[in-house]
Amino acid sequence: MAPDGLDRGRHRAVNPDIESERHAPAFQVEKLVNLLDGGVEHTRTRRSVEHIINSDDVFNQENLYFLTQTERYEVAVKRAVHLRLKMKELGWADNGPEMQVANRVLGGNVAFSVHNGVFILTITELGTDAQIAKWVPLAQDYQIIGTYAQTELGHGTYLRGLETTASFDTSSQDFILNTPEPSSIKWWPGDLGRSANHAVVLAQLYTQGMCQGMHAFIVQIRSLVDHSALPGVTIGDIGPKMAFEHVDNGYLMLQNVHIPRENMLSRYSEVTSDGSYIKQGSNRINYISMVFTRVRIISVEIMPALSKACVIAIRYSVVRRQSKLKPGEMEAKILDYQTQQQKLLPQLATTFAFHFMASSLETFCNQVKVQIKTEGDVLLLPELHALSAGLKALISEACSAGVEVCRRACGGHGYSMLSGLPSLYTRVVASCTYEGENTVMQLQTARFLMKCLTRVDCGQPLAQSVSYLSEPITLHCSAKEKSDFLKPFVYVESYKQRACRLIKDAGIKLQSLLQSGVEQYVAWNSTSVQLAKAAVAHCHYVVVKNFVETMEGLKFEPEIHQVIKMLCDLYALTGILDNAGDFLYDGFMTGKQLDLVTACQLDLLAVVRKNAVSITDAFDYPDEQLNSAIGNYDGYAYQRLFQWAQKAPTNAKVNLAYEKYLKPRFQLAQSKL
Amino acid sequence: MAPDGLDRGRHRAVNPDIESERHAPAFQVEKLVNLLDGGVEHTRTRRSVEHIINSDDVFNQENLYFLTQTERYEVAVKRAVHLRLKMKELGWADNGPEMQVANRVLGGNVAFSVHNGVFILTITELGTDAQIAKWVPLAQDYQIIGTYAQTELGHGTYLRGLETTASFDTSSQDFILNTPEPSSIKWWPGDLGRSANHAVVLAQLYTQGMCQGMHAFIVQIRSLVDHSALPGVTIGDIGPKMAFEHVDNGYLMLQNVHIPRENMLSRYSEVTSDGSYIKQGSNRINYISMVFTRVRIISVEIMPALSKACVIAIRYSVVRRQSKLKPGEMEAKILDYQTQQQKLLPQLATTFAFHFMASSLETFCNQVKVQIKTEGDVLLLPELHALSAGLKALISEACSAGVEVCRRACGGHGYSMLSGLPSLYTRVVASCTYEGENTVMQLQTARFLMKCLTRVDCGQPLAQSVSYLSEPITLHCSAKEKSDFLKPFVYVESYKQRACRLIKDAGIKLQSLLQSGVEQYVAWNSTSVQLAKAAVAHCHYVVVKNFVETMEGLKFEPEIHQVIKMLCDLYALTGILDNAGDFLYDGFMTGKQLDLVTACQLDLLAVVRKNAVSITDAFDYPDEQLNSAIGNYDGYAYQRLFQWAQKAPTNAKVNLAYEKYLKPRFQLAQSKL
Repeated sequence: MAPDGLDRGRHRAVNPDIESERHAPAFQVEKLVNLLDGGVEHTRTRRSVEHIINSDDVFNQENLYFLTQTERYEVAVKRAVHLRLKMKELGWADNGPEMQVANRVLGGNVAFSVHNGVFILTITELGTDAQIAKWVPLAQDYQIIGTYAQTELGHGTYLRGLETTASFDTSSQDFILNTPEPSSIKWWPGDLGRSANHAVVLAQLYTQGMCQGMHAFIVQIRSLVDHSALPGVTIGDIGPKMAFEHVDNGYLMLQNVHIPRENMLSRYSEVTSDGSYIKQGSNRINYISMVFTRVRIISVEIMPALSKACVIAIRYSVVRRQSKLKPGEMEAKILDYQTQQQKLLPQLATTFAFHFMASSLETFCNQVKVQIKTEGDVLLLPELHALSAGLKALISEACSAGVEVCRRACGGHGYSMLSGLPSLYTRVVASCTYEGENTVMQLQTARFLMKCLTRVDCGQPLAQSVSYLSEPITLHCSAKEKSDFLKPFVYVESYKQRACRLIKDAGIKLQSLLQSGVEQYVAWNSTSVQLAKAAVAHCHYVVVKNFVETMEGLKFEPEIHQVIKMLCDLYALTGILDNAGDFLYDGFMTGKQLDLVTACQLDLLAVVRKNAVSITDAFDYPDEQLNSAIGNYDGYAYQRLFQWAQKAPTNAKVNLAYEKYLKPRFQLAQSKL
Repeated sequence: MAPDGLDRGRHRAVNPDIESERHAPAFQVEKLVNLLDGGVEHTRTRRSVEHIINSDDVFNQENLYFLTQTERYEVAVKRAVHLRLKMKELGWADNGPEMQVANRVLGGNVAFSVHNGVFILTITELGTDAQIAKWVPLAQDYQIIGTYAQTELGHGTYLRGLETTASFDTSSQDFILNTPEPSSIKWWPGDLGRSANHAVVLAQLYTQGMCQGMHAFIVQIRSLVDHSALPGVTIGDIGPKMAFEHVDNGYLMLQNVHIPRENMLSRYSEVTSDGSYIKQGSNRINYISMVFTRVRIISVEIMPALSKACVIAIRYSVVRRQSKLKPGEMEAKILDYQTQQQKLLPQLATTFAFHFMASSLETFCNQVKVQIKTEGDVLLLPELHALSAGLKALISEACSAGVEVCRRACGGHGYSMLSGLPSLYTRVVASCTYEGENTVMQLQTARFLMKCLTRVDCGQPLAQSVSYLSEPITLHCSAKEKSDFLKPFVYVESYKQRACRLIKDAGIKLQSLLQSGVEQYVAWNSTSVQLAKAAVAHCHYVVVKNFVETMEGLKFEPEIHQVIKMLCDLYALTGILDNAGDFLYDGFMTGKQLDLVTACQLDLLAVVRKNAVSITDAFDYPDEQLNSAIGNYDGYAYQRLFQWAQKAPTNAKVNLAYEKYLKPRFQLAQSKL
C-alpha cells in the first residue's frame, strides 16, 4: 500500500478517500523522504530512534491534551530522567545523532531544555577549566538542575538594561547578589519555576565602586536536601502561558544572596581577591553561540510546526467532504476547492523553502565557526549575524502564520485541541518573540544593510549575500507570457530588484533626514518601519534564491526534481502576489504581468494538489508524533475524534455543577414532563 | 486625575509613566465614552450594571486563568444560575438593556449561551403557540436546559448534507431518530456535553417513504431524575479546545430514539397522524434571525476582543521601557518607537471603523425586520445577507489578526496568560469559523455581487450598498500632495475603484470561462480565489465609506470630531498600504502617490500616539473586565504580574516531580557541593 519504509505499523485499513490520493504518485515517496532527511543513512537512524521512543510507554503522548499545567510538568520531568537513563543504556552520545532525533521527537514534552541547552553550555563557554570540571559532570548527571536567568520583568532584548547586581565584597570574598527593583525580578527562565537548584544569573558586576557590566554567576537557589528556597531567594513559577505547559518558567528575586568568588564564570574576565577586575581576551566567540541557537531553533522548533500542520490539514482535506462541487455527485473533498488549495499548498511549498534555507544557513554557520577556530577570523560574523537574525524573523513569522492558516482551514475541528493544530500554533508563535523579538531582529539586519550601502558608496566589496546591492538593477521584468514566470531567473530577479529598491529607498530617507539636520536616533526611528520592511524583502530574496540554487544543485531523479521545481515556483509566485505592491510600485512589473503571475500560480495549485498527500507523506511523521485525531496516516479522522473525545476528563462520571446547581432545578420539571 | 465618571475605584496611585499620558488630553475623554456607548443614558446604565457585577464575588474572574476546563465549566454554571436569580431580584428583563450589558461583561464566563440564545429562540420561532407555551417557561426557569444540535462530525456549513434522520412511524405515532454514520454524530453544540437534558435536533425528516429535508425536533436526552443519558442516547463532552473552556460543547449519537409526534417544531410544517407532510407558509423570516445572530456577534463577541487588546497593549507600551532612543536619556517607552506605533495604532483605528460599521449594520437589520413584519417585503434581504456575511468575515479576520498583533507587541509578557491577551486571541479567532466559515461567507457575498453585475448589464437598478457598480469609474487618483490623502473623498474613491475593478475582473473571468464552454461549477471554482478577494474589497470599501459618513454625521464637539477624523484617516490609509498592489495594479495610483500615503500614514501615527492612552481610556473597561495583569488603568504591570503569578497553582507546595524523580538524584550532589 505504501512504498518501502513508509509503512511502519501502517499495514492497516485506510480510508479510501486518502488511499486514492496515494495511488500512483508521480514520484517515489521514499526518495523525497531521503532528500528531506539528508540521505538514506539519516532516514534509517531517524526511524530507528523514532521506533524506540514510540514503543516506550513513558513517552506515550496520547493523553497530553487532557493534562493540567502541573501534570504536563510532572510528565516532562519524568520523561527527561527516563530519557537520560535510556540514553546511557543505549550508548547514545550527548549530542549524537540519536539524541538529536530524540530531542526533536520529544521536543514539546521533555523537561530541562534550558538546563541541557543553555545552563551547561554557558558554563562550558564562559567557565574556566576548573569551573567546567566542577559543574558540568554534576549537571549532566542531573545531580543538579540549572537554569539560565537573564531576562527580567522589565528587561528583555536590551541586555544592557538588566538591573540585577552582583557586588564584590572583599571582606567576605563573596559576591552579593540583589534584585533592586520589581522590574529586575528574573522572569521567564525555563526549568527555574519548580526544578532548578542552581542558576547562571546574569548581573551587573560591581567591584571597587565601579560597574563592569554584565557577567554570569553560578548561584545555588534551592536546598539540595529539601528543595526549599535558600535564604534571600524568592522563587516560583510564573503561571499559565499560551503554551509550553511542560516548562516551569520561573521568577527569581535575590536579596543579599552571597556566593563565593569562584562562582563568577571567569574564562574571559575575573575579579581577584582584592577586588581588581581583569578582562582576559575577547568573548566574541560566544556571540556565535547565540547565532547558532537562533539557527538551530529554526530547524528544530519552528519549521516542524509548519510541516506537521501541513500534513494534518492536507490529509484532513482529502477525507473531509463538503458541499457538492458538481450537482448530482457526492460532496466534494475540500482540497478540490480552489480556495482551500490557495490556503494550504503555498504552506507546503514554504516548508521546502525554509528546509533548504535552514540547511544552507547551518552550513554557513559551520563554515564561520571553523574559520574563527582555525584562523581566528571573525570577518564573516556580521553577515552571519544579520542573516540569521532576519531569517529567524522571516521564518518564525511565516511559519506561525502558516500553521494558523492550516488550522483554520480545518474549520471547527481545527479548533479542537485533539486535532493537534491549536497547540502547534500557540507554541510556534512564541518563536516570534524568543531568541530576539522579530522587529528587533529585522532592525538589526537593517542596520547591517545600511552599513553595506555605505560600503557600496565607498566602492568597498560586499559580503556574498548582499553583493547584489552593488550590481546594476533591472528596470523592467522581462516576462512576456505565463510560462516565463516558471523560469527561476525571472522571479529571482524580481525579488532581487524589490529588495534592492526597498533597501536603497530606506537608505535615502535615512540620509536625507540626517542631512537635513535631524539627530541620528530620530532619523533611525523615523525610518524604522521602512527599514524593517527592507530587511524582510532582503531575507525573502535570500530564501527564494537559495531555493533555486539548492534545486539546481540537487542530484536526484527527474521526477523528484519536478516536485521540488513546482514547489519552488509556487513559493516564489505566491510571494509575489502577496507583496504585489512592491513589484508594481516603480513599474518593474505591470498589471498585465501580475495577471500572468496569478494565472500561473492558480495553475500550479492544481498541479501540486495532485501530489499533495504524497508530498506530506514524505515528511514521514509517525502518527505518534503528529498526535492529531484528524491527521493520521489512515485518514480515519471522525472515528478517532470520537474515540479520543470520550476519554476527555470533562467526561468524568462526577458532575459537580449538575449536583450543586442544576439538580434542584431539574427536579422541578419532573412533574411537568 | 481622571475626568468625571472615569475614576470609579480609580482614586489610587498611578504609575507616573501612564499618568503623564493622561495629562491634558486633546479632548474630553468622557465625551468619547458617551459617543461609543451611544449616549449618556447608555453610559449610565452600563456603569451601574458593571458595578453590580464587579462587586459580586460570584462573578469575580481573578483566578480564571488558573482553572482547569472542568473547573471553568463548573464556575460558568454557578454564575449562570446566580445571574438568573440576580436578574429576578433586580427586576431586569430577559432581553433588557441591563441583561445585554451583563451578558457582555460576563460573556466568556457564564454558561448556557446556546440554551438561552438558540434553544429558546428556535422554539419561539419554529414552534407552535402550544409548543412555545409548554417549553419556553421551563427553559427560561432553567428547569430544563436545552441545546441546539445541528452540526455533525462530518457536516458543518453545508446544511443539506446533514445525515441524522427522524422517521415518522405511524404505528407508534413517534418520530424515530437515528445517527446512521460516525460522520453524522452531532458535534460541537454548546451546553450539550454535560448540562443539557433536552436538545433541538436538526434531522432529515422521513415520512411515507419520502425525505422532506431538514426539520427541528425537541428530544429529551438525559433523565430529569439522575441526569443519566436516556436509552439509545450516547452523549458526552468533546474535550479540550483552543478556548471556550467554560462551554461544554458536546457530542450526541442517537440510536432508535423515539419522541412523540408533537415534538417536531411545527409552526411552518407538520406531520399529521397518518404521516402526511404539510408545509404551511414560508419560514423565510427565520433566515433573518441567522443574519441577526451574525450581526450581533460582531458587536458582542468579536469587536470587544480587539478593543480590549488595544487597551492592554497600549497601556503596557507606555509603562514598558526598552533600549535608549536617545543616548544619555533613560530607556524609552516602547510606544515611542515608530515600529510599535505601526503595530498598535492602526488597530485602535480599526476598532472605531468596526464600531461604526456594526452600528450601521444593526440599523439596517432593524429596518429590514420592520419592513418584513409590516409590509411582508423581503426585497432587502439578499443585500443584508450579502453584507452581513462579508462583513462578518472581514471583521472577524481583522479583529483576530489585530488582537494577535497587540499580543505580540507586548513581547514575552503578551505570551503569559496573565496578560489576558492569549485568551482574547484564542477565543476571538473562533469567530472566523463559527456562524459561517469566512471563506464560505466571502463566496456568498461574491455570489450576490455577481448577480449585481448581471443586473448592471441588464440596466436594472441596484441595492444601495452596491450602486457604485453602475457608476462611472475614476481612472486616476487625484491626489497631488500629502495633504490630499487626508481628504476622505480621495480615499473613499480609491477603495471604490479598487472594489469595482476586482469585482468586474472576477466577473469577466467567470463569464469568459462560461463562454468557452466550461461548466458552471468548474468556472465558479476556478474563479473562487478572485471572487473571495473581490468580496473582501467590496466590504472594505463599505467600511471605509461608512466610517466617513458616520464621522460627517456626528454631532459632537470639534475636538472629538478631530479624534475620529484622524482615526478614520489612519484606518483608510493603512488599508491602502496593506493592499498597495490593488491600488497600483492598473495605474489608479502611482508609486509617487503611494509614497505620499506612506508619509501621511507615518505622520498620523505620531499624532494618534499622543492621544493613544486617552482614546483607550474611552473604551471605559473596568479593570475586572480586562482581567489583565499588564493592562490595568493604574499602569502597575510588573507589580501585578508578580502578585498574580505567586497565586498560580503551579506554585503549590507539593512538587511530585521533585519527590519522585529529582530528589534521589539531588541527594547524590549533597556530598559534592
